Amino acid sequence: MNRVPARRPALSKRRRKGKHATPPVTARRTKAPAGSDELKVVGQRVPLFDACEKVTGAFKYASDIRLPGMLVGKILRSPHPYARILAMDVTKAQALPGVAAVLTPDDVPEGEWGERSFNYRGRVLNDKPRFAGDEIAAVAAVNEHVAEAALALIEIKWEVLPHVFGVMDAIKPDAPQVAPYGNVRSTVVEAGDLQKGFKKADLVVEHEAAMGNQSHAPLGRNACVVSWEGDQMTLWTGTQTPFPLRDELARILKLPQNRVRVIGMPTGSSNGLWWACNFQFIAAYLARKAGRPVKIELTQEEAMATVKRRETPTVWGKLGVKRDGTFVAMHVKHYFDNGAHGFKAYPFESVSDLWGRHRPAIRFEFYGVNTNTPNAGCMRGVGDLTISFCTEPLIDKAAAALGMDPLEIRLKNHIIAGDPIHSQKNIYKRFNVPFPGERLTSGAMDQCIKRGAAAFGWKDKWRGFGKPTAVNGNKVRAVGMACACHICGGRHLGSPSVIVKVNHDGSVNLLTGVGRMGQGVETTQAQIAAEELGVPLESITGTHADSGVCPWSPSTVGSVNAHQTGMVTRAAARDAKKQILALAGREMKVPPRELDIKDGWIYAKARPKKRIAFAEMTRKVHPEWLTPPYIIGRAAGNLPVGRIAKMFMAHFVEIELDVETGVSKLLKVVAVHDSGRIINPAVCENQVAGGVMIGGGFVLSENLVWDPKTGRVLNPNFADYKILNALDAPLLDISFAEVIDPVGPFGVKGIGEGATCPTPSAIGQAIYNAIGVRLNAPFTPERVLEAIKEQRTGGRAA
Amino acid sequence: MNRVPARRPALSKRRRKGKHATPPVTARRTKAPAGSDELKVVGQRVPLFDACEKVTGAFKYASDIRLPGMLVGKILRSPHPYARILAMDVTKAQALPGVAAVLTPDDVPEGEWGERSFNYRGRVLNDKPRFAGDEIAAVAAVNEHVAEAALALIEIKWEVLPHVFGVMDAIKPDAPQVAPYGNVRSTVVEAGDLQKGFKKADLVVEHEAAMGNQSHAPLGRNACVVSWEGDQMTLWTGTQTPFPLRDELARILKLPQNRVRVIGMPTGSSNGLWWACNFQFIAAYLARKAGRPVKIELTQEEAMATVKRRETPTVWGKLGVKRDGTFVAMHVKHYFDNGAHGFKAYPFESVSDLWGRHRPAIRFEFYGVNTNTPNAGCMRGVGDLTISFCTEPLIDKAAAALGMDPLEIRLKNHIIAGDPIHSQKNIYKRFNVPFPGERLTSGAMDQCIKRGAAAFGWKDKWRGFGKPTAVNGNKVRAVGMACACHICGGRHLGSPSVIVKVNHDGSVNLLTGVGRMGQGVETTQAQIAAEELGVPLESITGTHADSGVCPWSPSTVGSVNAHQTGMVTRAAARDAKKQILALAGREMKVPPRELDIKDGWIYAKARPKKRIAFAEMTRKVHPEWLTPPYIIGRAAGNLPVGRIAKMFMAHFVEIELDVETGVSKLLKVVAVHDSGRIINPAVCENQVAGGVMIGGGFVLSENLVWDPKTGRVLNPNFADYKILNALDAPLLDISFAEVIDPVGPFGVKGIGEGATCPTPSAIGQAIYNAIGVRLNAPFTPERVLEAIKEQRTGGRAA
Repeated sequence: MNRVPARRPALSKRRRKGKHATPPVTARRTKAPAGSDELKVVGQRVPLFDACEKVTGAFKYASDIRLPGMLVGKILRSPHPYARILAMDVTKAQALPGVAAVLTPDDVPEGEWGERSFNYRGRVLNDKPRFAGDEIAAVAAVNEHVAEAALALIEIKWEVLPHVFGVMDAIKPDAPQVAPYGNVRSTVVEAGDLQKGFKKADLVVEHEAAMGNQSHAPLGRNACVVSWEGDQMTLWTGTQTPFPLRDELARILKLPQNRVRVIGMPTGSSNGLWWACNFQFIAAYLARKAGRPVKIELTQEEAMATVKRRETPTVWGKLGVKRDGTFVAMHVKHYFDNGAHGFKAYPFESVSDLWGRHRPAIRFEFYGVNTNTPNAGCMRGVGDLTISFCTEPLIDKAAAALGMDPLEIRLKNHIIAGDPIHSQKNIYKRFNVPFPGERLTSGAMDQCIKRGAAAFGWKDKWRGFGKPTAVNGNKVRAVGMACACHICGGRHLGSPSVIVKVNHDGSVNLLTGVGRMGQGVETTQAQIAAEELGVPLESITGTHADSGVCPWSPSTVGSVNAHQTGMVTRAAARDAKKQILALAGREMKVPPRELDIKDGWIYAKARPKKRIAFAEMTRKVHPEWLTPPYIIGRAAGNLPVGRIAKMFMAHFVEIELDVETGVSKLLKVVAVHDSGRIINPAVCENQVAGGVMIGGGFVLSENLVWDPKTGRVLNPNFADYKILNALDAPLLDISFAEVIDPVGPFGVKGIGEGATCPTPSAIGQAIYNAIGVRLNAPFTPERVLEAIKEQRTGGRAA
Repeated sequence: MNRVPARRPALSKRRRKGKHATPPVTARRTKAPAGSDELKVVGQRVPLFDACEKVTGAFKYASDIRLPGMLVGKILRSPHPYARILAMDVTKAQALPGVAAVLTPDDVPEGEWGERSFNYRGRVLNDKPRFAGDEIAAVAAVNEHVAEAALALIEIKWEVLPHVFGVMDAIKPDAPQVAPYGNVRSTVVEAGDLQKGFKKADLVVEHEAAMGNQSHAPLGRNACVVSWEGDQMTLWTGTQTPFPLRDELARILKLPQNRVRVIGMPTGSSNGLWWACNFQFIAAYLARKAGRPVKIELTQEEAMATVKRRETPTVWGKLGVKRDGTFVAMHVKHYFDNGAHGFKAYPFESVSDLWGRHRPAIRFEFYGVNTNTPNAGCMRGVGDLTISFCTEPLIDKAAAALGMDPLEIRLKNHIIAGDPIHSQKNIYKRFNVPFPGERLTSGAMDQCIKRGAAAFGWKDKWRGFGKPTAVNGNKVRAVGMACACHICGGRHLGSPSVIVKVNHDGSVNLLTGVGRMGQGVETTQAQIAAEELGVPLESITGTHADSGVCPWSPSTVGSVNAHQTGMVTRAAARDAKKQILALAGREMKVPPRELDIKDGWIYAKARPKKRIAFAEMTRKVHPEWLTPPYIIGRAAGNLPVGRIAKMFMAHFVEIELDVETGVSKLLKVVAVHDSGRIINPAVCENQVAGGVMIGGGFVLSENLVWDPKTGRVLNPNFADYKILNALDAPLLDISFAEVIDPVGPFGVKGIGEGATCPTPSAIGQAIYNAIGVRLNAPFTPERVLEAIKEQRTGGRAA
C-alpha cells in the first residue's frame, strides 16, 4: 500500500461524486490516446482542488482581505473624453474628517507604466485624461462614504480638448493625437511574395468585417489591498500576472523586485481583464502616503467602463485561391482599437499560420490605434477570434465561388505538424534574437473538422451557402461552421520556473508563479507533478502566484500555462524524482536509472516486486544528514527552441432565427478541439462551454456603448450589457481530438482562449445561411431585421 | 557602479548612524582575522533588518494577527499537581451564548505528541493532569470574557493523587509514577576506563551543586492563530521550531505535512521557550471544532507557570588530577528535573569534551526525571551551564589543592582543534548509524582565557581562592572566572535546506525554514548569501519559517543556526552563483571557472576590468528563453561528517557583596568568545550581553517557586520573579577570538547559548572568594547572609 497519508476523506467522496456528475453538456471522450494506460493522474477527471470552497462560499478573493487599520481607497475619474487639468484644489477634500490621504498627479510623477508586458501605457494618475473614466485623483479614507464625499470636494479647472472615438477616424493624419507617441502602432507578419501569390490565383475574393465592443464583464470584483512595512510593500490582488505586475510595481516605485511582494489571489473570472491594472498602482501610492493599508475595490461599473475591454476591430481580407481550392495568397489588414491607454501593435494571432499548408504568400498587417474611449486590450481569443471573423467568411466566399463545401476547402488548406510558423518572428525581432525558424509540433485540424461534422450531422443539415436548413413559419433554422487556431506555446511571454518540495512524509509542495484564474492551475499542474513523480494526486498541494516565495513566471495569458508551465513543472518534478531515485538506488542497491516510481512505489523496472514505498524512502533518515532527505526539485526556462505548439478547433452551430423579431437563438454547438492530451476532461469541457458562451455573446448580444458626445459608457452593468446566460445556452457537444503533442508535458497543449475563437464565425456563417446577408457583429435583432428588409427590397447582399 | 537598485535610503542612513552608535558595552574587536580584507559583507556591523520596525512598534508578532470571524481560545488548567478526572460536565459551558466550541480530552484522543523532536511527551488535553497548570479543557468564544466565563462553568469531579516534587524524591523506587513510562530517562557519555583513570590520579576532588528554578520569563506573549480551509490548516505562531512543529501537528492531526502550514512569526525573546507548545495543538483542534479561526494568547502567568522552564539540576562531580594539574578522570552525575511532561535523557552538553586535552577517562551520567511540577526543558545554555556550575568549582578545588591559579589549570586541560569529541555518540546510536568519530574543527579556549585575563586585569585583582580583592567596610569586592563550551554544530537536529531565488533585477529572495527569534537570522543569513553571491547586502530579502513555502529546517535551537544553516545558505548561494557564472561565461566568452563576483560585478579573475554588472547579467534576455534568466539556487543537508564545531568562552567577573545585607552586585564582566568568524559584531555583542544577564540572573536573583502543597507557581510574573534589568547591568567588556573555523561558512561558528554558560560559575567563584563559602544557586541575600553567619560561627565551609 502507498504510505502517503490519505488526503481528506471528504474530498475522496467528492471525487467519487464527480465521476458520476455529468456536466451539462455532452462530453465525448474520444478513444484514449496511445500510452494512456501508463498514465495514472494526467487524463483523469478530478474535481478542482478549490471546488468545495468555491461552492460553499468559503473561497477567499482579494475582496475578502481585511487588515487592521485598513483604509478604503476611491478613485476620481475624468468626466471628459479628452481634457487637460489646468488646476486642481484638494484642500477641502484633505480637510474632511476621516480622510487619510489625497493623491493627485503631482504625487505620482513617475511617468508611464505598462508598455511591453501589458500592452498598456499610462500614467498612474493623469493630468491630461484620455477618456471619460480616466484616473485623475484618489482618496484614502476610513470608509467608502467618506472617500466618496472627499472625491466630490476636489475642485478642478478643465480645458476640454477635441476628441476622437472611431478607429478609422483616429488613423487619419489630422485626428486629435490621443497619445503623445502617436495614435497608431503597426506590425507586419509576412512570408512569400504577395504579388506573385495573387498572380497565381484563379480567384480572388475580399471581405471586410467590423465587430462590436465586448466587455470582459467580470463576475468578480477587481480589488486589491496594499500594505507597507518600511520599504517593503505587499499587494494582495486577483491577477493573472503576479510576477510581471510585481516587476512593474518595482520599476515604477523604484524598489528592488524583492521589496514588492505581490500575493496573487484568485480572480473572479478572468478572460484577460485581470492583468496589472492602474488601481493597483494607485493603491500602492495611496497606502504609502497614508501610512496605513489601503483597499481599493472597483465597482461593477468601474470594472466594465474603465479597466479594459476587447480591442474593437475592423478587419479587411483578400484571398487568392487556385481553381482546386488551394490558397496561394492571403492579405489581411487588422485595425484594432486600443482605447485610451492600450499599447499594442500585434495581437499574437495564429490565423496567419492556420491556412499555410500550400505555403501561400501572406501579409498580415496590424494597426493598433488609440482613441478617446475606454482602455482596450487582450480578451479571451485575442486576435484569432477577430481575424477569423473576417478570414472565415473570406474562405466561405471562395468556397462558394468554387462550388466547394466549407469543410472541403478548409481540409485542403490547414497546416499540419512540421509546417512552418511565421507569426512569432516579431517576438524574436523584439529581443534582437535571430529567428530560429519555428515549426508546428502537432495539429489535428482535420480530425476536428471531420469528427465535428459527423457528430453534428453536417451532411444532413448543410444546404449550401446562403441557404437555411429549414423554415417553419417565422422560424428559420440554419447551420454554420468555422475553424480557428490559437497559440498555447511560444516564447513571447518568457519562460516559467517551478519548485517542487518533497516533504519527509512524501507529501509535496508545488510552487509556481502562475495566476489563479479559476482555470484550475492548482489542480492541473498538480496532476502533472503527481504523474511525473509517480505519486497520487492527493500528495500534492500548491502555492501559486506569491512573488515573495514562488519562482518567477510570465503572465498567465495566451493559454500557454498548461503547455509551458506544465513542461517546467514536469521538469522540476523530474529533478526531484532524480534525487529520490539516487537515494533509493543506494538504499535498494540498484542503479538509479533502473528504478522508476508509480502509484507511490519506487521499484526496479526489471523486477517490479523489488520496491520501497515513496513515502518510506522520503521518511528514512539519511545516514549522513541524520535527518530524512529533504528534496528540492527546480526547473526554469527549458522551452524547446524552433518548435511551437498551437491548438486547433472546429465549431459547428445550429441557430434558429425569427425573421419577425430578428432574434437569433443558438440551438446547438458541436465543438471539437485538438488541445493535445487532455490533463483533466472536467476542466477542458468547462473551458469550451465558457468559451462558446463568450464567443456567442460577442456576436449575438454584447456591445458596450458610449455616449457619442461625452464618451461615457452607457451600459457598464449586467442589466444593460447583455451576456449570454444559462437560458441562452445551446446544447453543447464537446469532444477532443487527443493527439499527443510531442513537446507538451505528457502531450498536453492548451485550450482556454481557443474555445472562444470559432464560435462567432460559425454563428456568422449560420446567420448568412439563414438570411443571405453577411452582417457585422453583433447580430442584434435590429441589425438582422434591417438586413432582412434590405435583402427583400434588393438592398446590399454578400 | 553596481546596478542593483539601492536599498531604501532610509536604511542607509540608519546604517551610517549604526556605525557611530556605540553599544552600551565596551566591544573589543580583536585584530581582524586573516582573509577578512576579502570579505565585503560578512563581518560587517550592520543593523538588523527589522531594527526600525521593532523600535517603532510596527513589527508584527503572532499576537497581532487578526482574522475575520476569529474566536478567542482559553484553556482550563488543573488546580491539582496530580489528579484524575472522574467526570467532566461541559453542558453549561457549551450553552453559554457566545461559546463556539468546548474541547475536552475526549475530543483529542490522539495520544501524546512531542517525544524526540521536542524533549516533551504529553497529551493535548489531559484527563490525568500531572501538574497544577496542566491543560484539561479549552473553550473558543467570541471574546475572552465569554471564554473565561465558560471555563468557570465546566464542572469536574476529581480524584486527587499523591504527588512528588523534588528530583531526588522522584527517582526513589516508591515515588508516585508521574509518567506511565517511568519517571527517569538516562544516558551515559563515556570514554576510557574510569577506574584506571582515577587510579592514576594524585588528587581526587568532589563537588555537588544544586541550582534554582529558572523561568524563560518571555517579554513577548506566546500566541497563535489557527485557521482551517477545508482540510488545510494554517497556524501563525511565534516559534523557534516551525518545521518540527508542522511535522508534529501533521502527525497528531493525521494530515499530510503539506496540509499543515506553520507560518513562524517572530518570537518575543526565545531562549528555548518557543518550541512547539501544547496551546498550539489546542488551538488547532478548537478551530476545527468551532469551524472558525481561533486565537490563543497565553497570559504572562500561563507562559511562566505552565509552558516550560529550565530543568532544575543537581550535579555531582568527581575529578582525578595529576600533580602537574593534568586531568586523568572525571565522573559527573547530572540529575535534572523534566517537570511534568519534559522527556529528556540528555542535554547535548559539551563539558564532557571541554577538558579532554590529555584524554582523561570520563563518565557523564544524565538522569532526566519527571516530577509533578511545571514542564521543564531546554533553556539557553542548556546542560553546559548547569554542568559547568559543578565542574568549574571542581576544577577550582583541584587548583586550590595543587596551589595553581584557576587560569593555569584550565589552560593545561582544555581541548584544541582536532581533539576527539565523545558527546554526540548517542545521537548516532539513536539513528542506528555507526558513529564516524568526531573531531573538533577549531577551538581557541586559550585565547579566550588569556585575552580575558589581560582585559580584566586579572593579575592585579586575583588574591587566591577564597580571598576577596578588596574590603571596604561592609562592601567586599571579589573576582571570579569560568570557562565553558557549547555546541554550534552537529547533526543531532538534522540538516537544514535553503533556497536562493535571484530576480531579474539582481535582487535576491532567500528562503529558509529557520525560526525568527530576534537573533537576527534574517540579517546574518542574508550576509552569508550576499558574501557568497558577491552582491551588496541590500540586494537580499528573506522569507523564513513559513512551512508552506520555505524548505525544511530543523529546529532553530542549540546555537547551530549561524554555523549549520549558514553552511547551507552559502551552498545554495554558491549553487545560484554557479548558474549565473555559466550564463556570464557564455555572455563574456570566458570559461565560468575563470569568473568571480564581487561588489555586484561579475569579472574575469585574470583581467578584473573585463566585467559585467551582476544585475545587468540577470536582467539580460536569455537567447533561448526570451526572458531574463531566473535562477533558483538550492542546497540541503551538506553538513560535514566526522567534524564538529564548538564555541568556547571565558568570562571574568567582579562583584561587590554587602556582608550586612547579603546583596551581591555584578560590577564588571569581561567576556571573550571563540565563535569563529563574527558575521555581525552588533548581533554577537548583543548575544553576549543578553547571555550574561540571563546567566547572572540565574545565580543572583531568579527562582520560580511553587506552593509546596498545591504545586501552584507563586511568582509567575515580573513583579515577583526578579530578572536582572538595566539597573543591575554590569560594565561589559566583550571581545572575540576570531579564529576562523575551517568548516563553518566563512569560518563562522555560533554564539547564543554559550553566552549564558560561564557567567554563573564565574559569579559562583567570586562569591566564594568574597565569603569563603561555596553556595548553591541562586545566591539570594538570605542564603548569603546565612552562609556568612555559619562561616563566622564555624559552620560549613567549602
